[in-house]
Amino acid sequence: MVYIHPTHERADPVNNLKKRQLDLSRHLSVEAKARLPNPIKAIWKVAQVKPGTINMGNGDPHHTLYPVCEMNFIVPSVSESDPVQAWRAGTGDQQIIASYKDEPCALSLRTALAYGAGAGLKHVRDALAELNDRIHAPPKHMVSLSLGNADALTKCYRLLGDPGDSFLCEEFTFSAMTNAALPLGIKWVPIRMDKDGLIPSDMEKILANWDETLQGKRPHVLYTIPCSQNPTGSTLSAERRRQIYDLAHEYDIIILEDDPYFFLQYDLDIQTTTIESYGYTRAMADVLPRSFLSMDYDGRVMRLDSFSKILAPGMRLGWVTCNDFFAEKLDMLTDSSSQHPHGLGQAFISELLGGEGWGIDGFMKWVSSLCREYQRRRDLFMDVFRREVESSGLASAETPKSGMFVWIKINVERHPRYRKSEKLDKPGAPVTNTADLMNELFRKLLDCGLVMMPASTFAIVDQTGRIPTDGHITDRVNFFRATFVGTDEVIEDGLKIFARGLEEFFCY
Amino acid sequence: MVYIHPTHERADPVNNLKKRQLDLSRHLSVEAKARLPNPIKAIWKVAQVKPGTINMGNGDPHHTLYPVCEMNFIVPSVSESDPVQAWRAGTGDQQIIASYKDEPCALSLRTALAYGAGAGLKHVRDALAELNDRIHAPPKHMVSLSLGNADALTKCYRLLGDPGDSFLCEEFTFSAMTNAALPLGIKWVPIRMDKDGLIPSDMEKILANWDETLQGKRPHVLYTIPCSQNPTGSTLSAERRRQIYDLAHEYDIIILEDDPYFFLQYDLDIQTTTIESYGYTRAMADVLPRSFLSMDYDGRVMRLDSFSKILAPGMRLGWVTCNDFFAEKLDMLTDSSSQHPHGLGQAFISELLGGEGWGIDGFMKWVSSLCREYQRRRDLFMDVFRREVESSGLASAETPKSGMFVWIKINVERHPRYRKSEKLDKPGAPVTNTADLMNELFRKLLDCGLVMMPASTFAIVDQTGRIPTDGHITDRVNFFRATFVGTDEVIEDGLKIFARGLEEFFCY
Repeated sequence: MVYIHPTHERADPVNNLKKRQLDLSRHLSVEAKARLPNPIKAIWKVAQVKPGTINMGNGDPHHTLYPVCEMNFIVPSVSESDPVQAWRAGTGDQQIIASYKDEPCALSLRTALAYGAGAGLKHVRDALAELNDRIHAPPKHMVSLSLGNADALTKCYRLLGDPGDSFLCEEFTFSAMTNAALPLGIKWVPIRMDKDGLIPSDMEKILANWDETLQGKRPHVLYTIPCSQNPTGSTLSAERRRQIYDLAHEYDIIILEDDPYFFLQYDLDIQTTTIESYGYTRAMADVLPRSFLSMDYDGRVMRLDSFSKILAPGMRLGWVTCNDFFAEKLDMLTDSSSQHPHGLGQAFISELLGGEGWGIDGFMKWVSSLCREYQRRRDLFMDVFRREVESSGLASAETPKSGMFVWIKINVERHPRYRKSEKLDKPGAPVTNTADLMNELFRKLLDCGLVMMPASTFAIVDQTGRIPTDGHITDRVNFFRATFVGTDEVIEDGLKIFARGLEEFFCY
Repeated sequence: MVYIHPTHERADPVNNLKKRQLDLSRHLSVEAKARLPNPIKAIWKVAQVKPGTINMGNGDPHHTLYPVCEMNFIVPSVSESDPVQAWRAGTGDQQIIASYKDEPCALSLRTALAYGAGAGLKHVRDALAELNDRIHAPPKHMVSLSLGNADALTKCYRLLGDPGDSFLCEEFTFSAMTNAALPLGIKWVPIRMDKDGLIPSDMEKILANWDETLQGKRPHVLYTIPCSQNPTGSTLSAERRRQIYDLAHEYDIIILEDDPYFFLQYDLDIQTTTIESYGYTRAMADVLPRSFLSMDYDGRVMRLDSFSKILAPGMRLGWVTCNDFFAEKLDMLTDSSSQHPHGLGQAFISELLGGEGWGIDGFMKWVSSLCREYQRRRDLFMDVFRREVESSGLASAETPKSGMFVWIKINVERHPRYRKSEKLDKPGAPVTNTADLMNELFRKLLDCGLVMMPASTFAIVDQTGRIPTDGHITDRVNFFRATFVGTDEVIEDGLKIFARGLEEFFCY
C-alpha cells in the first residue's frame, strides 16, 4: 500500500489525523470480518526476512519462459498544444510507449507478467498516489488498483454490506450497479434529487427519522456519483458536498464516491499562467471540483477512480483510495477473488505516466484537451437541442457541467392523454399515467430509429426487480438520459429524430 | 456464449444430450438465484432489433478518442522445431503480434478497448471453444472468459455456495483458494489422498455416510485439481476420474475442475506421424489426460483453464467451460462485479491464436515445447534429489507426471525426538509430534537459506484458521511442496541446502 502525503490545505495534518482518523471496523461485513489472510503469503512474510534465500516454494513460471519480450503502444504525443484535436485529425506526432522484459523501463515485463499483489504493483500505485496527492491532497489514505469502478464498487458492497443492510443512494442512479447489491441482501434507500443532484436535507430527513424497529439497521453507507451523476448529469456543488460529508460524519456513514466522470469537467477557468508556472496538473487541480476524498479527515470516504472514460473502457483499470484499514480488507478480498490487475495494463500505465511516456503532467494535458473536445460536443448538443427540441416546449434540459449525459425532461403533462388519477383513496398508488406515456414515447422513438435511456431504467427497484410505487417515483420518470459524446452527425441526426418523434407523439 | 460442437467419441451426441443434460438450477446459491439482469442491457436487447438505430443511450467514449491506435507484442516464432529452447537461447526467430484500431486485424482495438460482455468477446471465446473442442470434445458446453482460475473459482463459490453448505476437496489443497470460501460460510470436507490423488472410495464413504441431521446439507460441490494437484503434484488416473464422475452423478455433485497445469504434462508419447498428418493440437489431444469436462454428459462439470502457467501469470486470463445454464448465471455475476476481461489481453490472445499469429496449432506447438523444457527441469530435480537427498533415507518423493511440484515426504519417524503420544484417553488429539518437528525443520531450512512450502500450509482449516485435530491430519503433515520450475542453479543449490539442513536436523 502507498501512503499519500498531505501537502497543503492543512496547518497541522498529523495532529488533524490523530484527532480524526476513526476506528471504522464496525462497518465491515460479516464476510469481510471472517476473511483469513492467504496462508501461502503469510509463509512468505516469514521467509523473506533473509536476503539471498532460495525459493523452492512457489509455482511461478520463470520469466525466461514468458513468450513476450517487448510490448509497444502507439499513442498520441502530448507535445501538441491540443493533443486530442491533433490525434483526431491525424496530424499530430505519435509516440511509442514501450515495455521490455530484459531492457530498462519504468516497469519491467518480468514484474508485470509475474504474480503480483491484489492491490497492484508498487510502481503503478505510487504514480496514482502522486496524481491523487496533487489533485485531492487527501488526508492519510491508501491507493489500491481496481479493474474499473464496477469491480471496485461491488467489492465495496462485499466489504461493507450484510444481508438486511440498507444503503443510501440517489433516487435515479446507475441501476446496473445498484442492482448488483440486491442479491447480497442490501436494500436501497433512495434520496430525492433536484437539478443539482441529491438533496442533503432529504438525506438528513431519512436518517433523522429512521426507525430501527420498523426499518432495520440505519443506513451506514451512501453510494453517490458526485460528478455527472448517472443518469441525471448533475454535479454536486461544493456546498452540498460539505453538507453531505457533515451528515455522514454525524450519522456515521461511509461514502462510496464513484467518480468516473471527475476528469471530464467543462467551462473550466484554467489559468494559462498556472500552466506555465506549475504545469497542467496544478492548473487542473485548481479548477476541478473538490472531491469528498479531499475533505475526508474521518477516513469514511472510499473514492473510486477509473481510466474507462479518459483512456478507454476496455483498459479495465481504476483505483480505489481509502483509509488504510479498509484498504487492507479490500486487498484481502481482491487476493481472494479477481487477484492482481492484469500486467499488460499495469505496464502500459506505468510507462504512460512515467518519464519516457506522457508523465503525470502530460496525462493531465491530454485530459484537459479531452475536456475541451467533450465540451465542444456538449455545446453542439445543447445548441441543436435548443433549436430542434426545446423550441417546441415539449422538452427541456439543464446544461451539464461534466461527464457525458444530458437529462432531458419531457413535459408529459402537455400530452392529450395525460391523466392525474382521482384514486386518492389508494395511498401509494401512482397518481399519474406518466410511466405509461413515457414507455409509449420510448417505443415511438425506437420506431423512429433512436434510442435514449428512459428514466425508469434508473429508478431503484426492489429485490424482485419492480419499481416501488409508494414513493411516487413513477410520477417523476418523465426524463430520458441522452449522451452527447457521440459524433456530430449522431447529435444532429439523433436530436432531429427526437424532435420529430416527440411532436408526433404529442400529436402536434 | 459459444457452443462447442461435439465432434467425436459419441455416436449420437444430440440424443445423448437430450437424455442426460440435467436441470441443475437446484445447485444455485440464494445470491445467484436473486441476481437480476442488467436493466440497461435489457433495454439494448429491445433496441438492437432495428438496424441503423441511432444510439444516444450509452456513455461509451468514442473510439476516435482512445489514445492508442496500435499495440505490438514481440513474441517467439513457433517456426523453430523447439521454440522454447530457441527463445531461451535467444537464437530463434521472433514475430510481432499486432492489433490495430483502424487497420484490419483479428480483433480491432475499437472493439477490444470498448465496453464488452462479461463473458468476453466472441472472437476470443470462439478461439477457446475451438481449442476446447479439439482437446476435450465436450458435450454441449459454453465458454466464458475469466481473469484466471482464482477469479473463476471464487465466482463459482458465489454461484453455488450458501452459508452452511459443505463442499468436498482434497485433504491437502491450494489453501489460498479454499480459504477464500470460508467467509462465504462454506465448510470444507476433506477427502483422503494417496500418491495418486484423492481416493474415490473415501469420497464415497463421506457421501454415503453423510447424516444431514448432524452434519447439515450433504455436499453438492467437489473442488479438485486433477493434474499436478496443488500441493501434492499427483495426477488423477483415468480410472479414478471415471469413478469420481460416477460418484458425482450418483450423489448429484457439481465438479469444479481447476486445471491450471493441464497443459504441462510429461513423459508424453507424442506421435510424430500424428503431428505430420494432423498437427500439434491433435497429437497433444491424443496424449493429454482425459478431463472431467470430456466425460460430462450431465453438465455437472465447471472446468477452469488458465493462461497463467503456459503464457504468464500477469496475463490474468483464463476460461470457464460449463453448461449453458451455469454459464449464463456466471456471466451475470461477472457483469455485476469484475465486468469484461481487459481488452489488451483479449486482443493479444485473439491475434496470437489467429491466422497472423501462432494459430491454435502453433500455440499447441509452443505448449508441447514448454512441456519438454519443464520435463527437463523435473528430471534434473529428481536426479539431484535422488543423489543428494533420497540417498540419506530421510526423505523420498514420487516423480510428478505434470505441473510444477514435487511432494517431498520427510521420514519424520526417524528423528530422535519423534514421539507417538500415549494419550489414547484423549480421542481426537494428535498422537504424534509430527507437526511440531516439521515446523522446526521448516525454520531450520529457512536458517540455511531455503524456502519450501510446509504441508501444514495446505491442510484444510476451520473458520477460525485452525487445522482441526480430529482427523489426525497433523500426523500426516510430514511433507514439503517444492517446485522444480526454477533455474538449474536453484534446483542444484536448493536441494544441496535441503540435504544439508535435513541431515543436521536429524543429527546425522
